[in-house]
Amino acid sequence: MSKLALGLDYGTNSVRALLVETETGAEIATAVYAYPSGEAGILLDSRDPNLARQNPLDYIEGFVATVSQVLVGIDPSRIVGIGVDTTGSSPLPVNAEGQTLAKEFPDELAAYCWLWKDHTGHAEAAEITALAQERGEPYLAKCGGTYSSEWFWSKILRCARVAPDVFAVADSWVECCDWITGQITGNTNPRTLARSICAAGHKAMFADAWGGLPSKEFLAALDPRLADLRDRLYDTAVTSDHRAGGISAEIAARTGLVEGTPVAVGAFDAHFGAVASGAKPGVLVKIIGTSTCDCMVHPLSEPLADVPGLCGIVPGSVLPGYYGLEAGQSAVGDIFNWFVRFCGQSHEALTEAASKLQPGESGLLALDWNNGNRTILVDPLLTGLAVGQTLYTTPGEMYRALIEATAFGALTIINRLEEYGVKVEAVVNCGGIAEKSPLVMQIYADICNRPMRISRSAQTCALGSAIFGSVVGGAHATVADAQAAMTGIKEHVFEPDPQPAATYARLYKLYRQVHDAFGLAPATRLANVMKDLIAIRDEVRNVD
Amino acid sequence: MSKLALGLDYGTNSVRALLVETETGAEIATAVYAYPSGEAGILLDSRDPNLARQNPLDYIEGFVATVSQVLVGIDPSRIVGIGVDTTGSSPLPVNAEGQTLAKEFPDELAAYCWLWKDHTGHAEAAEITALAQERGEPYLAKCGGTYSSEWFWSKILRCARVAPDVFAVADSWVECCDWITGQITGNTNPRTLARSICAAGHKAMFADAWGGLPSKEFLAALDPRLADLRDRLYDTAVTSDHRAGGISAEIAARTGLVEGTPVAVGAFDAHFGAVASGAKPGVLVKIIGTSTCDCMVHPLSEPLADVPGLCGIVPGSVLPGYYGLEAGQSAVGDIFNWFVRFCGQSHEALTEAASKLQPGESGLLALDWNNGNRTILVDPLLTGLAVGQTLYTTPGEMYRALIEATAFGALTIINRLEEYGVKVEAVVNCGGIAEKSPLVMQIYADICNRPMRISRSAQTCALGSAIFGSVVGGAHATVADAQAAMTGIKEHVFEPDPQPAATYARLYKLYRQVHDAFGLAPATRLANVMKDLIAIRDEVRNVD
Repeated sequence: MSKLALGLDYGTNSVRALLVETETGAEIATAVYAYPSGEAGILLDSRDPNLARQNPLDYIEGFVATVSQVLVGIDPSRIVGIGVDTTGSSPLPVNAEGQTLAKEFPDELAAYCWLWKDHTGHAEAAEITALAQERGEPYLAKCGGTYSSEWFWSKILRCARVAPDVFAVADSWVECCDWITGQITGNTNPRTLARSICAAGHKAMFADAWGGLPSKEFLAALDPRLADLRDRLYDTAVTSDHRAGGISAEIAARTGLVEGTPVAVGAFDAHFGAVASGAKPGVLVKIIGTSTCDCMVHPLSEPLADVPGLCGIVPGSVLPGYYGLEAGQSAVGDIFNWFVRFCGQSHEALTEAASKLQPGESGLLALDWNNGNRTILVDPLLTGLAVGQTLYTTPGEMYRALIEATAFGALTIINRLEEYGVKVEAVVNCGGIAEKSPLVMQIYADICNRPMRISRSAQTCALGSAIFGSVVGGAHATVADAQAAMTGIKEHVFEPDPQPAATYARLYKLYRQVHDAFGLAPATRLANVMKDLIAIRDEVRNVD
Repeated sequence: MSKLALGLDYGTNSVRALLVETETGAEIATAVYAYPSGEAGILLDSRDPNLARQNPLDYIEGFVATVSQVLVGIDPSRIVGIGVDTTGSSPLPVNAEGQTLAKEFPDELAAYCWLWKDHTGHAEAAEITALAQERGEPYLAKCGGTYSSEWFWSKILRCARVAPDVFAVADSWVECCDWITGQITGNTNPRTLARSICAAGHKAMFADAWGGLPSKEFLAALDPRLADLRDRLYDTAVTSDHRAGGISAEIAARTGLVEGTPVAVGAFDAHFGAVASGAKPGVLVKIIGTSTCDCMVHPLSEPLADVPGLCGIVPGSVLPGYYGLEAGQSAVGDIFNWFVRFCGQSHEALTEAASKLQPGESGLLALDWNNGNRTILVDPLLTGLAVGQTLYTTPGEMYRALIEATAFGALTIINRLEEYGVKVEAVVNCGGIAEKSPLVMQIYADICNRPMRISRSAQTCALGSAIFGSVVGGAHATVADAQAAMTGIKEHVFEPDPQPAATYARLYKLYRQVHDAFGLAPATRLANVMKDLIAIRDEVRNVD
């Protein structure tokens, strides 16, 4: 019987388990578990749209439920290794045993896991950025020059400010990718559990160059309690070709896994998705889900500029031996899902209506900022904008405008990478939207004026987890070997169509005008925007 | 038995007849007829959202249907006079007998009535404005400095350009208010039928000061065919306290009216609505329907500045002896109706949701430009804009933002009047929305920071028609006498609430920033807009 690897992918609303043949990448079984807590797995506060938390216990229940399900009829000894990816930065406070504080503080949302899209720490993020600049610290050069409200320290400092009781009780804080590998291996001690370089480097300003986490002096200047916390965090973080441990007896008993099955060090979903989409120099991998993560790699041996606005540049965060470059859009599928709720029509009906439209025909232009802008503005306090509405504007037109807005955002990231010498020779897309929406992919091809390729697996992030499982399990000697055996691209490539591409090139100029006016200071002149939109619309409609 | 007057009000989608006691203004009977042609009475072209036409035959059928209905059980000899108001500028081409060309050209939309909200002539409007400026003509000083695509000459020049066959066959062009009084009195000859000073002065650049319509030289410079047409138009236009004629035998036979019953010269709905709402110096009357018309009067004997952006300043257009000042918003109810179609929820449900929100709570800001901006920008090529959307924005929030947008537009008009010395001492609202939506009226009171009064009649425009019917029928010696007898204000006044008013004062600054950036060149700095909205939202929600 062929060897198998097991990949776990913890998303925003659910967790997926995927069982894969290590020799071929063939997907044998999969199972999904929707987090039972909150609204679609997210704990919300109606007073504050910036708040988004999760119940960490859902993660463990989800592991047991999905793994038990994929193991039905499978000999568990065929599984050579297990990988785990999660959203991030999604840290949680833990006690000295590494257990969640949500049991002690069931009514305090601060005691739960602070989900990546929680933006409550925006003031703290600004404070961190300002202090690092003021002190001339090196920490921000590799994360785009601005520390994000979505990241580790913003959330922890926020907790210290608004929930000092929870903060005081917390022994340590753990990214959920590390917390989960700790829980399933039984190595839960926050002082010794394996910490992901992907999480540490991209979100916690961890780098060997300055001795690990930011200095005690820096943290003390933010809040003395953070400096104390630093001693209870970590000074080592490793790539996911390292072993976090073996499956614990308890988890083995609950799932049917063999005790001691190797578990790889965790990482973020998008980075594993990039690996499973064939990440290598020159290839941009876009993981398109509720948000996007855009990943590239660059050899550690070659020079690389600091790219302003990128979320992070971290050695080893995607592939060992390469810089991992991470950019992203704070909302993509989330914007489409919001609009479905807003207008009360289905994705299918809206897609059908939007498919009938030509670029520019609606006269609409939108910004993709309903959840802020991650790259290139690194500003969570931006919001959505739509312009060009008439008395005849339809939901299908607006849906298309929102898709286009996310594509304009994608192009803005590509342009920024290339402006700083990182050539984007090919784009590979993965994630639910890349899989399911030919309309979205064609619009992306036309707007970016590049072919859009789709990763072969429909579960790219989970496949990436399985790849690292196969490596720590010894089925492949290197990640590159595993990629060669287990990944691929779909035959159909979305090619850009010259005429739509030309119209979109004109619309993109308007997008950049509004983008820069609302996102950058000082503003540029805007008064031509609506007239240009109407001129384009009339031209497309052949109105004379 | 008391004397009665009959008022006809031709709106965008239907016509209403109202039978009123001349001594008290008591409303005895009313009837409504929805125009059967097109979509809700409007002939559209799916290729061009700027196009809006009507079938003139609907007007006559509507007269017969509604008048017959209100006359049931009434002795027609009690009716002393009849008045007619319509939308405008809504001109139609006619043959030498004054009949519509729609019978000859049933498939040519250019042969029908060009409804006020038809914006197809925007290029022609710009051409007229440019030529008048270039030649130093006086025509634009009294209509805000910009000739509108909604007006008489823009539409006629547009017809000459795009439908030369229709234009060539047209003997003359008649505003529908004059066409209807011509049709019901039998005085249909376009050379002799009574022309309204309200229509002529506000829409056709007619003024005694320069000898009536614009000069032949000016018109020839636009198009020689317009100069020829000038000879087949008119050189006299009169106020509505003049008689257009008496009811014809044919119309008497079809309706039950007494042949010869006096008919007042027609005018526009909003101007008659202003009269029926008690128009006098210092009082701004807002007629709020699909669009708004904002009317004031100013004594002819007192100096009056040219107010930039006002649609028009015309002696006698509202009340004899006073300048009529007209401003307006191109869409108000039309925006709300559009949004109901867009989001698939009812006005009632949206109003309920919007009522629960505090000013600033949604973080949304919209512009009220889905149908262009009439006052103060006089620019039909502006479109809607909404900013501040998150992943949690609801239809109720957006509905409220759209109401607020129209209120900000209303305040912008008030401010402009006062900047030029026309003091707004009181505001009286009428029309369907003023009648039916306490939410809209309270938001208007809070945003304008002034009490909002509501005209007593629910059919203010039709009542205005009846007032002029009563004057031409001799029941009252003057319009002021008729106003005193027949009009009033409702007891309930919407008073501004200081706290919402203070929040709205802050939001209005942002509205003006976006308004000026998108509506005026050069643009101002915009980058603070979204952050200020969020700061206000968080403050209102008490997020710390």
